[in-house]
Amino acid sequence: MKKIDLDTALRLIDGAKKKALEIKVPMDIAVVDAGNNLVAFQRMDGAWLGSINIAMNKAYTARAFDMETKTLAPFCQPGQPLFGIHASNDGRLIIFPGGIPLKDGNSVIGAIGVSGGSVEQDQVVAEAGVAAL
Amino acid sequence: MKKIDLDTALRLIDGAKKKALEIKVPMDIAVVDAGNNLVAFQRMDGAWLGSINIAMNKAYTARAFDMETKTLAPFCQPGQPLFGIHASNDGRLIIFPGGIPLKDGNSVIGAIGVSGGSVEQDQVVAEAGVAAL
Amino acid sequence: MKKIDLDTALRLIDGAKKKALEIKVPMDIAVVDAGNNLVAFQRMDGAWLGSINIAMNKAYTARAFDMETKTLAPFCQPGQPLFGIHASNDGRLIIFPGGIPLKDGNSVIGAIGVSGGSVEQDQVVAEAGVAAL
Amino acid sequence: MKKIDLDTALRLIDGAKKKALEIKVPMDIAVVDAGNNLVAFQRMDGAWLGSINIAMNKAYTARAFDMETKTLAPFCQPGQPLFGIHASNDGRLIIFPGGIPLKDGNSVIGAIGVSGGSVEQDQVVAEAGVAAL
Repeated sequence: MKKIDLDTALRLIDGAKKKALEIKVPMDIAVVDAGNNLVAFQRMDGAWLGSINIAMNKAYTARAFDMETKTLAPFCQPGQPLFGIHASNDGRLIIFPGGIPLKDGNSVIGAIGVSGGSVEQDQVVAEAGVAAL
Repeated sequence: MKKIDLDTALRLIDGAKKKALEIKVPMDIAVVDAGNNLVAFQRMDGAWLGSINIAMNKAYTARAFDMETKTLAPFCQPGQPLFGIHASNDGRLIIFPGGIPLKDGNSVIGAIGVSGGSVEQDQVVAEAGVAAL
Repeated sequence: MKKIDLDTALRLIDGAKKKALEIKVPMDIAVVDAGNNLVAFQRMDGAWLGSINIAMNKAYTARAFDMETKTLAPFCQPGQPLFGIHASNDGRLIIFPGGIPLKDGNSVIGAIGVSGGSVEQDQVVAEAGVAAL
Repeated sequence: MKKIDLDTALRLIDGAKKKALEIKVPMDIAVVDAGNNLVAFQRMDGAWLGSINIAMNKAYTARAFDMETKTLAPFCQPGQPLFGIHASNDGRLIIFPGGIPLKDGNSVIGAIGVSGGSVEQDQVVAEAGVAAL
């Protein structure tokens, strides 16, 4: 099974950065491994300071539940089954787009998290990172 | 590029206080620099104790995303794209009016945060602080 | 009984800053009131970022126990009666010099905390703040 | 004045990694900018998970006090002037070798933090990172 080693993480971040440059939105980008521990993080010049935490936690969340953070969003709204979950895990869960699990076949081997633009922009940059896997 | 040094921060706070006195609402007022580190804070006599934290975190939030905290508000409501973001950044994000980034041309060089009244009052006092820049 | 209102806090900070300028060590300076809530904080240009937290918490500690933080130091060493106390109060206690309670007669009405140099320098600047009371 | 932008941070991390490979100890390496905000982080394959936090916080500490974390160590021991400081700054201060401020002339423009081996190994790898500046 593939592992998210440092070289792989950096390749994913480079893929994400290329897309971020293309859409002209500087991003914070984080990659975690199968153990949900940070492998690499980069803040592009001019990217939001508040997105350092969010990029890391999008990656954390995607591996925490083995699903895209955008998938969580509808279930976490008021009145929905998981409302309130964002305050669990010591406040580390992010319940909007930009975090995507990394898979080898059906196995989740890590995750990428991107923050710095609109959630649509974050998502497309995260997808570009995954495509580099 | 201008820097938010202590003299500048105190001038902004004085501008904000003048407006707070004018509208007769005592305020907590905080100023951070470009690195999002606190430069100065003042609690006017009679201002809410709970606003000490909120004023500081409004300034933090405005610099964290280089936008007014009031701009964040609609995007962070239930059902909206950033719902749940207020639990990120270790609970330091404030997603209602009263935090404004400080700019030199297009560069964000710091932020001011005001809390102590209605959000409309907080906003107008924060704007008076910015006007003193 | 005197109260540590904002004007008083700012006068104390000015007294402390004058001494800091005299000894040529930029300082972070905080003043709390009788309720141990922050009234004012200033970071002099060039003062340590890590001292923002410490200055505030020296003031907090001095009011928390109504004694100078330097008085606490010997009791908090390994093998001494209060060893370990620095981890209490959510990590807000500082057990070395630079925090001094403010008194009106025998009543503690607040505290000042100074950080940015050696503990001797912090202490002398805090004392200059108290002298301005 | 030089800035610790992303390219610079990655160059420093590469310099540190080269030394880590040479001494055959995988390391966690972090770089912060002048505002003490994380710019980049990398965990080398096999590096300790517990060092993710420590590498980041060594960089944080070195910028927080504009000095090497090894300089802090003797002053923070039991019976010494700063004993207990490690519990301040929300538990983010690391008071042993491996964190070094980055300077442009006399100005501190950021810091590097390294963790993963003995403190001597951490220090030599951090120094190799600084040498790449």
